[in-house]
Order: sequence, then C-alpha cells, then structure tokens
Amino acid sequence: IKLLLNEEEADESQKGINKASKGGIIYGDYLQLDKVVTAQVLQSELKGNKIHDEHLFIVTHQELIFKMVMLHQVRDERNMLKVNTRIHRIVMIFRLLVDQFSVLETMTALDFYDFREYLSPASGFQSLQFRLLENKIGVPDNLRVPYNRRHYRDNFKGHESEMLLSSEKEPCLLKLVEKWLERTPGLEGDGFNFWKKLEANIFEGLCLEKKKIAKMPDSEEKEEMMEELTKQKELFTSLFDIKRHEHLLSKGERRISYKALQGALMIYFYREEPRFQVPFQLLSNLMDIDTLMTKWRYNHVCMVHRMIGSKAGTGGSSGYHYLRSTVSDRYKVFVDLFNLATFLIPRHWVPKLDPNEHTFLFTAEYCDSSYCSSEDSD
Amino acid sequence: IKLLLNEEEADESQKGINKASKGGIIYGDYLQLDKVVTAQVLQSELKGNKIHDEHLFIVTHQELIFKMVMLHQVRDERNMLKVNTRIHRIVMIFRLLVDQFSVLETMTALDFYDFREYLSPASGFQSLQFRLLENKIGVPDNLRVPYNRRHYRDNFKGHESEMLLSSEKEPCLLKLVEKWLERTPGLEGDGFNFWKKLEANIFEGLCLEKKKIAKMPDSEEKEEMMEELTKQKELFTSLFDIKRHEHLLSKGERRISYKALQGALMIYFYREEPRFQVPFQLLSNLMDIDTLMTKWRYNHVCMVHRMIGSKAGTGGSSGYHYLRSTVSDRYKVFVDLFNLATFLIPRHWVPKLDPNEHTFLFTAEYCDSSYCSSEDSD
Amino acid sequence: IKLLLNEEEADESQKGINKASKGGIIYGDYLQLDKVVTAQVLQSELKGNKIHDEHLFIVTHQELIFKMVMLHQVRDERNMLKVNTRIHRIVMIFRLLVDQFSVLETMTALDFYDFREYLSPASGFQSLQFRLLENKIGVPDNLRVPYNRRHYRDNFKGHESEMLLSSEKEPCLLKLVEKWLERTPGLEGDGFNFWKKLEANIFEGLCLEKKKIAKMPDSEEKEEMMEELTKQKELFTSLFDIKRHEHLLSKGERRISYKALQGALMIYFYREEPRFQVPFQLLSNLMDIDTLMTKWRYNHVCMVHRMIGSKAGTGGSSGYHYLRSTVSDRYKVFVDLFNLATFLIPRHWVPKLDPNEHTFLFTAEYCDSSYCSSEDSD
Amino acid sequence: IKLLLNEEEADESQKGINKASKGGIIYGDYLQLDKVVTAQVLQSELKGNKIHDEHLFIVTHQELIFKMVMLHQVRDERNMLKVNTRIHRIVMIFRLLVDQFSVLETMTALDFYDFREYLSPASGFQSLQFRLLENKIGVPDNLRVPYNRRHYRDNFKGHESEMLLSSEKEPCLLKLVEKWLERTPGLEGDGFNFWKKLEANIFEGLCLEKKKIAKMPDSEEKEEMMEELTKQKELFTSLFDIKRHEHLLSKGERRISYKALQGALMIYFYREEPRFQVPFQLLSNLMDIDTLMTKWRYNHVCMVHRMIGSKAGTGGSSGYHYLRSTVSDRYKVFVDLFNLATFLIPRHWVPKLDPNEHTFLFTAEYCDSSYCSSEDSD
Repeated sequence: IKLLLNEEEADESQKGINKASKGGIIYGDYLQLDKVVTAQVLQSELKGNKIHDEHLFIVTHQELIFKMVMLHQVRDERNMLKVNTRIHRIVMIFRLLVDQFSVLETMTALDFYDFREYLSPASGFQSLQFRLLENKIGVPDNLRVPYNRRHYRDNFKGHESEMLLSSEKEPCLLKLVEKWLERTPGLEGDGFNFWKKLEANIFEGLCLEKKKIAKMPDSEEKEEMMEELTKQKELFTSLFDIKRHEHLLSKGERRISYKALQGALMIYFYREEPRFQVPFQLLSNLMDIDTLMTKWRYNHVCMVHRMIGSKAGTGGSSGYHYLRSTVSDRYKVFVDLFNLATFLIPRHWVPKLDPNEHTFLFTAEYCDSSYCSSEDSD
Repeated sequence: IKLLLNEEEADESQKGINKASKGGIIYGDYLQLDKVVTAQVLQSELKGNKIHDEHLFIVTHQELIFKMVMLHQVRDERNMLKVNTRIHRIVMIFRLLVDQFSVLETMTALDFYDFREYLSPASGFQSLQFRLLENKIGVPDNLRVPYNRRHYRDNFKGHESEMLLSSEKEPCLLKLVEKWLERTPGLEGDGFNFWKKLEANIFEGLCLEKKKIAKMPDSEEKEEMMEELTKQKELFTSLFDIKRHEHLLSKGERRISYKALQGALMIYFYREEPRFQVPFQLLSNLMDIDTLMTKWRYNHVCMVHRMIGSKAGTGGSSGYHYLRSTVSDRYKVFVDLFNLATFLIPRHWVPKLDPNEHTFLFTAEYCDSSYCSSEDSD
Repeated sequence: IKLLLNEEEADESQKGINKASKGGIIYGDYLQLDKVVTAQVLQSELKGNKIHDEHLFIVTHQELIFKMVMLHQVRDERNMLKVNTRIHRIVMIFRLLVDQFSVLETMTALDFYDFREYLSPASGFQSLQFRLLENKIGVPDNLRVPYNRRHYRDNFKGHESEMLLSSEKEPCLLKLVEKWLERTPGLEGDGFNFWKKLEANIFEGLCLEKKKIAKMPDSEEKEEMMEELTKQKELFTSLFDIKRHEHLLSKGERRISYKALQGALMIYFYREEPRFQVPFQLLSNLMDIDTLMTKWRYNHVCMVHRMIGSKAGTGGSSGYHYLRSTVSDRYKVFVDLFNLATFLIPRHWVPKLDPNEHTFLFTAEYCDSSYCSSEDSD
Repeated sequence: IKLLLNEEEADESQKGINKASKGGIIYGDYLQLDKVVTAQVLQSELKGNKIHDEHLFIVTHQELIFKMVMLHQVRDERNMLKVNTRIHRIVMIFRLLVDQFSVLETMTALDFYDFREYLSPASGFQSLQFRLLENKIGVPDNLRVPYNRRHYRDNFKGHESEMLLSSEKEPCLLKLVEKWLERTPGLEGDGFNFWKKLEANIFEGLCLEKKKIAKMPDSEEKEEMMEELTKQKELFTSLFDIKRHEHLLSKGERRISYKALQGALMIYFYREEPRFQVPFQLLSNLMDIDTLMTKWRYNHVCMVHRMIGSKAGTGGSSGYHYLRSTVSDRYKVFVDLFNLATFLIPRHWVPKLDPNEHTFLFTAEYCDSSYCSSEDSD
C-alpha cells in the first residue's frame, strides 16, 4: 500500500486558508446539531431498563426524511423545469425512504420485544407529518381505511386535527395537476380539438380493422379476432362516454376531471414534441411517487409482520392487518395516469398536427429567468 | 381497479382499540419531533433572500445518520453475536449513507450557487461527529491529511478540540479488535502453536513444489515457474519476519500487532469451525465498514467536484483537492485484514487439528443469556 | 484537475507481465460471451419493424440473475457457515433483483406498446426457472393461485412440466430447514426438554401476573389488564395445543412440523449462545428471502400496472389482477418464522440452562475443514 | 394470516385465456434462454476440482448489463426527449452496475483463492465490451493508463484489436455532444452573441464590486476581499482566453471545443427557458454517467483489494495498483461539464434576453412524431 501523497498532490490539497478562524457561523451551529442530535430520549432508560436498540428505533423514526419531502412546494406552474425537478427530487427521497427499512430490519423481533412495552400508546399511526404528506399529495378523505372503525382524523388531538382538516381543504398536488392538465394546449374545441379528432380516428381505425378481418376466410382465428375487436370497441366507447367517467369519479375509481384526463392522454401521445417533453416527464415522476409510496407501505407491512407477527400495534391498531389494508389502489393518488395505459393506440391513429397551423407544440411562454429565480413563498 | 376491501379483510383490519385515547406518551412527543423538524434555519432567509434548496441542504447534513452509527458501542467481547450484529448494523447504515448522495445530487451546481455564499465559513470539515466517528473506529492521528497545513484538531474550538483529544485517547475499535485477535485460541506457544506450525507447513510446501519443478525438462515455462516460486518464498519469508512487521507498523502500512495478525490469519483459515464462524463474519464486516467509509469519501469527492468545480470550499479548504487526498489507504483502518489476502495458501498446507486434543475450535465459553441481555453501559 | 500520475504510482501500476500473450484461455472465451451477448433476437425486427427498446426488454428478462440464485444448493447441513453464507448470498442477489425494476421502469407504457404485440403469446408466467425456484424454496402446489382456472403446471409443455413435477417431489428448502430444526439440541424429552419447561414457565409467569393484577384496587385499568391477560393465556394455550397446530397445518396457515416450530423458538430464545448464533442468522436470512420475493412480486405488479393498465397479459392472463393475487402470504414459505414473533416472552420466563449439565449450547460437532472444503455434488 | 382470496378477487384474477396453448413463440424461446443459462462452464470442474463459487463468478461477469448499455445508440439529435431518455436509462443501468458489487462481495478472498489459479491468464482487462464502451463514450486513447507498459490495444487479439481501433475512429458520445453544443442557438456573433455579452457583463460586475470594496474603510477584511476579487478577475480572464483553452485542450485538461464550452455555459445559465430544459437535463445525465463509471472503477478497486490484497492480477497486471491508477480524471470524459461550476456567476450578471427579439429560447423545431418514431438504424 502507498500511504504518502506525492508532493504535487500534497501541495494542492493544502492550498487554502481557514476562514472559520476569524469567526462567523460554523457547521454545528448552522445545522443546529445541538437540537437534532440530542433529541433522543429512551423510554426504556426513563423506566430504568435502558435498551440499546431503542436508540436506533428513535433515530430511524425521527422523520427528517419526511420533512425533506414536505419542504417541496410545487405551486409555480410557469416554470415547468423547476416543478419537474422538485417532483423528481421527491422521487429520489422516497427511493431512499424505501431503502431505509434495511437499517431497521437489522433489529430482530426479539430486540424490539425488549423495549416495545415502553412505547405504548405511541404508534406510527399518530405521525402527523405522514398524514399531512398524504393530504398534500391528495389521498382522499373518503377512501382512507378507518382506524379501529373511527375516522383517521379523530385519532389526532385538537391542534393536530385542525392542521389535518385545513390540509384537506388546501389544493393538493392532485388538484394542481388536474387544473394544469385541463389547460393543456390543443384541447380547445375551437382549435385543434384533440378529443374529437382522436375519437374520429379511433373509430375509423377500428372500422378499417373490422373490414380487414371480415375479408379473411372463416376460421377459429378470425372469430377470435372479431371478438377481440368487439372488446376493443367497447373499451374505447367507454373512454368517450362522459357519463361513465362521472360514475367512476363518484366511486373513486377515477380521480381527475374528464378534461384533465384528455390533457394527460394528449401529453402521452405528443410527448416527443418540444412543448410536451417536460410535462411528460412530470407525469412519469408523479407515477413514481405513487409507486414508491405504495412500496413504502408494503415494506412497512413486511417489517411489522416480522417484528410483531400478528399482534396488535403499540397504539392499539390491529397491526399487520390494518397496515396491509392500506396497500391498496385507494391510496394511489395518480391512479388515472396508470390506467391510461389501457387506452394506448397505434401511432398512425394519433391525430396529425399541421406545424404551420398548430404551433403550440413547439412554442412556449417566455420565462424570464430573473423572475423565475425569485422563490415561491413557501 | 378494485377499491373496496372484502368484508373479512375490512373486519380484521379494524379489530383494535385506540389506546392513546386514554393518555400516555404519543408519537410526536416520544420522538421529540418538535425539536427535530423545526431545527432548520435558512441562512439565505435570514439574509433576506430565501432560497428554497437550502432546506434540502440543511436536512441532508443534519447527521442523524452519523448519530445512528455513533450510538453503537461494541465493548462487550463475550457476546460475539451482539458485537457482530451491531457491526453489521453499522454496515447497513453506511450503505444508506453512501446512497444518500443521490438525493443531494438532485441539486445542481447552479442551485447550490444561489445560497452558497451564505454558508461561509461553515464547512463539512467542521463536523465534530464525523471526526469523532473516525477516531472511534481508529483513524490514526499521524496519518491524517492536514487541513491547510494545520493539524486537524487545531481547526476545532476549545470544547470540541478537547472532545476530539479525549476520543483519540480512548481505545478505538481497531484497538479492541487487536486485543481480541491477540487472544485467539490456538496461538499459544505451548498449545496448538498455530504460527510455528504454519511456518513449517508453508516452507515444506514450497520445498516440495521446488522439487517438482526441478524435475521438469528445461523450458521457458519451467524458468518462469521457478521465478514465481522464488517470489513466493520471499513473500512468505517476509510474513514470518517480525522485524519487518515492526518496520511496516512504524510507517503505518500495518496497524495491528504481530500477534493480532496471526490471530486474524488463523480465523481466516479455520473460519468453518464452529468457534470461528462468527469471528470470521466480524472480520468481513470490519472490512465492509472500511470499504463503505472510503466509498462515502469518494462519493463526497464526486459531488463536490460537480457542485463547485475546482473552487475553494466554504470553510476555506482547497475543496476538491483536499477531499481527494483523503480517499487514501491512510484512512483505511483495517487495511491489514485486506492485505492478508496476499498470504493465502492451498487448503492442504493449513495445519491440521486433532479434534481430540484441540477442542477449542468447537467449544466456547458459556454465555448466560440473562447476563448477556443486561446492556453495556453506553 | 491533475491528470498525470506521479512517477512512483506510475511505476507501481505498470509492474506486471502480460500472461495472456503466451496462450491460454482468455476472458471472452472463459465467459462464453459469444453465446451470451449474441442471444438477443428482436421479434419486432423479425417482423420488419425494429423497435429499439425491445433490446432492453429482452436483456432484462434473460434470467441470469435467477440462474445465480438457482446455482446455490444448500444440502450440507454440517457446515452451517457455508449454508448461511449461501443463503445470505441469495438474499443479496434478491436485493439486486428487486432494485433491477428501476431499469425496466425507464421504459414507458408507450415505448412498450410499440412492440408488445410481437411478444404474444410469450409471457413471464411461462418462466420455467422462476417456477423451479419457487418449488425449490417450497411454495406449496396446493396454495398456488391458479392461472386462468388451470393448474400452474398445465401451462407448461411436456418436458418442462415434468421438470416442475420432479422439482415438487424433491425435498425443498423448507423441508430441509424443517428436518434440521427438528434436530435442534435441547428438544429431547429425556434431556433439557425445552418445550415442557417453556410451557411450565409461561403459565407460572401468567399466574404470577394475574395475582399481581388481582391485588390492584378496582379500576378501569385493572379490568383492561385482566382482559389483556386472559387474551395472553388463550394465545399461549393455543401454542401448546398440538391439535390446533395440525389444524393450521392442514389449512396452510402453518407450514412446518410442531417439533420444528419448537426448534425455531428455541433458537430464537437462546440465539446468543455460541451454538445458536449462526442458526439464528440463518432463520433471519430465510425471512429475508421470503420478504424479498414478496417485494419482487409487488414491484412486478406495480410495473405491470404502469405498463398495461388493466389490460390482459401477453400470454392471456388477467394481467394486473392475476399478479396482484400472488402477493399473498400463500407464497410466503417461511411464514411460521414471522408468526413466531406473536409468541415472544420476557427474558426471565425463558428456561434457564445449567452450563455444567447442558453443554450442548457451547459445544458443536467438529467440522474437518479439509472435509468441508470438498464440494457438495451440485 | 389470511390465505384465501375473496371471491371477487379470485374471479378477477382468473379472467383470462391461455393464448400459448395454440402455438406461437413462448417465453424461453423468445429469450433464447437455452443459450444464455447454459453458457456457464467452470474451469475448476474441467480441471477436476469443481468449486461451487466459480458459478457466481462467471454469471456476475457475463456482461449482460454492459450489453444493455451498449445497445443504446444516441445519434438522432432532433428528438431531444429520446436522446435524454436513453442517456437517463444508461444512468439507471450504471447505478445497478455499481450496486452489483454487493453480490460478488459475498465471496470472500478465501473462496476466490480456491479457483483463482484456474482462471489465469483470463482477466477483466481483456473485456472487449468494456473497452468498446469506454471508446463509445469518449475515453481518449492518449490519456489511458498503459497496461504493463504497453498500449491497451496491443493486449487484444487481431479481430478485437481492429474493432477497438475502428471504435476509436467513430464519433464518440463526447464528440456528438460537442457538435451539438456548438450549435446552441444564441451563440451566433451576429445574433444574441452570448459570449461577448457575458464577457462584458462579468467584467462590468467585477468592476462595480471593486468600486464598492474600495469605498470601505481600510481593514484586514477589505484587503482580503480585494485579494479575492483579484483572483476572481484572473479566473474569468482565463475563461475568455482562447489560447489558454487550446493549451488545456492539448494537455487533456479540457476535452471540448471553445465554442462547445460556450454552448454548455449558455445552457447552464438559461436552463429554465423552455428550449433549454431538456438540454440541461442531458448535461446533468452526462455527468451522472461519468460519476457512475468512476464509482464503478472505484468499487472494482475496493473489491480487488479485498480479494487478492496486493498480488498480481490473473492476467498479469499489477492488480490493485493498476486499477487504482485508472480512478482518475483522465477517464472522466465530460470533465468540462464539472469544471464549468468554477465559472458560475450571480443571476443578475447573466445577459438579459429580449423575448420579442430572441425567440429562440421558447420556440423549437417541429418534430413530427410519426417521423420520430421511426427507429434510428442501430
């Protein structure tokens, strides 16, 4: 092994001056580490039976990573790059959150048993930040799984309950995305009129397909193809049926308005046009968030199963069974973006644009960067 | 999509009672979240130019993960499973630490530039926890790269400097491991005498090899094999030369005593015997820690290069060049465990054990579990 | 930036001779790369419409990682370190498998749509290796979710179907673990008799607890504690009821014999004794495998939802719904090891060992390392 | 645990038909698994001493992941989303590659020793795909570290050597990026003339700064600020000195043309304008590739250190020292993009755009999606 640096390296690595020697804020103060790294009080110790692993348990739960997510307001729709970058960052943070279970999983069920009794009635269900986060993203109140047959909010104290209620009333990420999708250029009835053109193209395409199949000699294969085509027709008929959309909305199986749905599909089909490239990335990132949250929930279920088997949770929930019931599409906020994959079509069915007439796909509003840099007031 | 749970599931998920309704500590209080999630003060905001990304920067640096590592004292050598489990947990935490860069890397150089000036002279170099951590593991004072030509400790204030000095004086992980390795059963001169037997076997083996080669007809290949054998002999002669060991120790190219080195090699060779299985895992985990710390350093270098190019650090270091110089075997505490791979031998050269005489490899001290459970006073 | 190496480094890095120049097997031949990296034939290309992303799709599916898992036979129970190491390696491979979805997820639903039609009727369900893997671990035939109302094996061709049948008949990992657990030292009725001692201790403990509560003045709290105690008693009564065990076995809610269950719990309680340290790690690793396989399944579900919404799979399955139904405890092979967490007890209820009498926990069979090194014939 | 699905779920999961029953290509044939999963021949077995771990070693090295990277041609510059998506995918693949070491690291030095002798003279250095990959990205011939004092290409056989030579002659990713950067709209001398405007703004800014400092009362701080300003001025003077650029180019410390450098800086500064959002992401992704490749190299070094200590490689290289010398900025292809962070400036120094005159930042060429979908001929 070579331990000594060569002179040139050694020189370069030492070319600096210690700025801190003259005062000014330094690392520990800047980060308020005195608060953060001292905020670990072991209940087991308070109760006279210090259990080492409770330390890990506390630190793992201290939600700094949730805080990281919460920080990101994404209100300013003009600056799509910034919105997309922040959503992408949330994706990266969630990725870390999902992986973080590997650390807590080094604690065995038996290690946890040693201090578990001291925790009660504290319970992860009571995490205010997590519920706020769900509300900010857009988990709807009426689709939440109840907690011991009570409304989730009734399990929080006055002040916290009010914060939750007010967070439900604020426009959530889902609503912001919905409004933005509704304004997708190209949807206007007196302009490109994407939806009408799309409907026409699809049914013309299906019609041609039908004629092609009809000309085939009779066979089992022909019959199957006809059946498949009929199914396709039903599927697309349902897509263009606004009443059905309203019905699905009322049941929670769809979550965004009919117009927003059209905007999303438009972005899907024209994603390669300059105007829609970043919007398309944004839709992908929103699905990533949903996917990662549901993976986080599932990892949580797996860990709890391992830690306490089928016992009740420290806060009194049914434990494993309660958590398992939350790994559901009910909690998938952007479920519509996933389900749009059901309605993909061949590229040549996509309505053609006339670049001279429909310039909206390759121009965009000017975004004064000096303006953009001013921070949104979050 | 199916949103409604079936009745049975719904039932099971709701079987619980809300224990918190009757008082007792709840989640947020238990975790002191009021302290932790409010300890983010933006310098950019204080200076009238709030920059959103500074939030992320602060949270990422708040060292809860370092705290997680620091928590793990591993003094109690009797209970090898516990020691090994804790070291393994540190490995898992470091793995997360290495991955965590992916989050901060979502911040571009330009985002960072917007608030970088407000940070000075705070600097990562001033992280007390990181230096304590290095000392606890066993980075030796005299091998550290200086910081702007000054001793690393001189860059810390009085109280912190004292904590560092006292951490240098406490037995570090390396020293604990060294003492434990020196006591490896089987090393005793009046017992199995592993080292002497090993030396004899190796030179006998080399001798037989030489005879075998000597009998071959002359050829280029024969010559090469002879050369290779000579090199091997020199290599192993050096292994059994205690003076050379002392010389390497003095230069920092070896870090543990000669006896400890023997113990480590013994554990390597007999790792499959019951007594040595967990010790062998421990040695692997120690190498993992070294590897992950060096990867963490390297990831840090990569991120800094991207963030500030070749500019000086906020605290006044030479930035990239300083950090780059710390990605060195100087900071690899358990470097001896890696280098032992140089001295592996064929299995049939390993001294044989007589199971009737040398029982130490399949018996172990009794570890009263009621005793083991009492926590070390960390 | 510094590009030039210093002389010493440059020297050291160049000290070698090119052995390959004189013949012998080289890298590409050794690894048969000509076979492996040329085995990607695009159906889209064959059908005259080459779609770039099909490449990625093929390579991602080529199952070399499954092959990595399959390689690991773990028959030799004498050498616990080796068994444990291999199981741990499988854990690490699965971890990678779970992460691998991040690569395929860079392909959007629209990219996949472009070549999806060419794939039919090929389908992931037809993966022989995956089914073999499930059988080797021990997914029971009768708990598998059917595939389009047919037995899973009926969807494979003659030769493959036979391989599957014969893999079902071979002793799976679950069975090997069961047999090994049954032999746990300390279970013998004429020896330590762990199970009987445990039963006595638990009911004595509960009895004392009851007396303590009975002495409390009447209150709501007292009532609740009594109720809780009654539940505890029922729980533990069920644990010692062999008939109930047989009933759960018949329903698939338990999977290992009553004796094996006892062995597992014994290893849990005495995990810190030298003899049980590696066995305890093994049980943890087996749960890791289960957890990772179920996470893999769940990640698969998430990806499929994104790729095809609620359409049928290329092979004709119901797609999302079929896959979702396999993310179930039915496929958790080592579910008993998780559920044992339901039966943990305070440390002082664990039957005490007499180190003079019960030596089995700190002695082990001698494992001749020269013997151990000889490979099992896999 | 609940094992039985409810009826509704069970129904939905079984709604499908087995398409494969009527013939057509199925999974194993589609993926040519017969070739791929049978291409593992153990040298240790051929030589009569089958070592189980050689399996893992072979599969890990079979380069399917490199193949995944190689597949991605990124020639079509018109469709920036597609280029960016592919580069991003390569990033994700590399991320996996870097993590993959965790699997091979489950093999200890002693496990490897058991079959290492059978491998020689095969060696990772001989990996054709890796060298081709480096060339495709743009590692320059003249900056490569020699291999045992010989040119890297001289260590490959005739056919392979030719492939390498021809790959060096093809335009690499670096060159494609350079050409594209040179065409950045806004660089034209008779148009926006970014570079000239930037130079003017910077020196005006520095001048104002100087005046401001000059007005301060004399103090140590003032002196330091003046010194700092002088350094800044030198730094920026060097940026606008084309001769210095040519000099750095000739030494390999810069890799792209002066004009391309200007384009990159322009994208940095106007990254939030619609036209430059995806280009900016692309530059970030290119840095990711560089960073991940260098992390891969470093992980490789760490693993080799652990496996063979300081012994020579199987192919005859100096092993650890050779590999260590390749973890260098010499191999960082997009090093200029990193170093541009040295030249960041306050937002108000960035030349202002007149949205009526300089429309190029919010319009883009029309990209006919039916055209875009046609695949580049890779």
